[in-house]
Amino acid sequence: MIILGLDPGLGTTGWGLIAADGNRLTHVGNGQIKTDSAMSLATRLMALDLALTDLILEHRPDGAAVEEVFVNVNPQSTLKLGQARGVILLNAARSGMEVGEYAARLVKKSVVGVGNASKDQVHAMVQRLLPGAKIVGSDAADALAVAITHAHHLASARRMPAR
Amino acid sequence: MIILGLDPGLGTTGWGLIAADGNRLTHVGNGQIKTDSAMSLATRLMALDLALTDLILEHRPDGAAVEEVFVNVNPQSTLKLGQARGVILLNAARSGMEVGEYAARLVKKSVVGVGNASKDQVHAMVQRLLPGAKIVGSDAADALAVAITHAHHLASARRMPAR
Repeated sequence: MIILGLDPGLGTTGWGLIAADGNRLTHVGNGQIKTDSAMSLATRLMALDLALTDLILEHRPDGAAVEEVFVNVNPQSTLKLGQARGVILLNAARSGMEVGEYAARLVKKSVVGVGNASKDQVHAMVQRLLPGAKIVGSDAADALAVAITHAHHLASARRMPAR
Repeated sequence: MIILGLDPGLGTTGWGLIAADGNRLTHVGNGQIKTDSAMSLATRLMALDLALTDLILEHRPDGAAVEEVFVNVNPQSTLKLGQARGVILLNAARSGMEVGEYAARLVKKSVVGVGNASKDQVHAMVQRLLPGAKIVGSDAADALAVAITHAHHLASARRMPAR
């Protein structure tokens, strides 16, 4: 199955696509959607929505995942992030995907093995888990990390016998 | 022209529709879109998006307006509000409407005459400006107040000669 990981942001949204075949993960693609801060908020949200729609139509992921939000100390930043995140969750849901949400600690633990791993450690481990991937930036690396977490989560869920 | 005012919220979004003919305002409708807190965030955002799409298709407003956000002291509330607001701005922009944003002070000043008016004063004045309107709740009253502000703003803009 194809999994889309997303790291939402109004200015930059990271995305990462992986193919998961049981425990075997392959890199499909990654990138960063940027919106122009000179545009109105509504226009930026529309640009983000359109880019995401294109991405989903092109790759037809089977599932999506985002990180649960670390609420920023700056309320204006939290509001901006919320607005972008709302558009992203709506888009994924409209496309008929279940959207997994994972706490940042869980993503780090799932990818690096410890919940307090640094951003650099996450990036390096994502690179090792997806050899050959050209990771375009830290938001894309975070998005791939969330996709990997979702894949692990689904694989463990399958190993649990239904009762 | 028909103006749609919106008071965004994840749990309850107020809406108010007025017809503006120069300075003459008429009430068209108002209501509150509620989403079920037992549902997932993505499902709630989708419910909000669908209800708003229905409303816009039914009434075909020419313009929309929202209040600029008072950033809440509780970051989790700010995030929730942001997510709902992002979906609302996106929906209005996709429908081809310009979306006016007005500071809360300006809305109060425009409706009541003073920037520090209470919620009750706003409600009472909206009721007086739109006689016969059955206002279903305080979120709907706020939405009507934003629509009235937008109408005043457009009327003043028309009175200013182009240079």
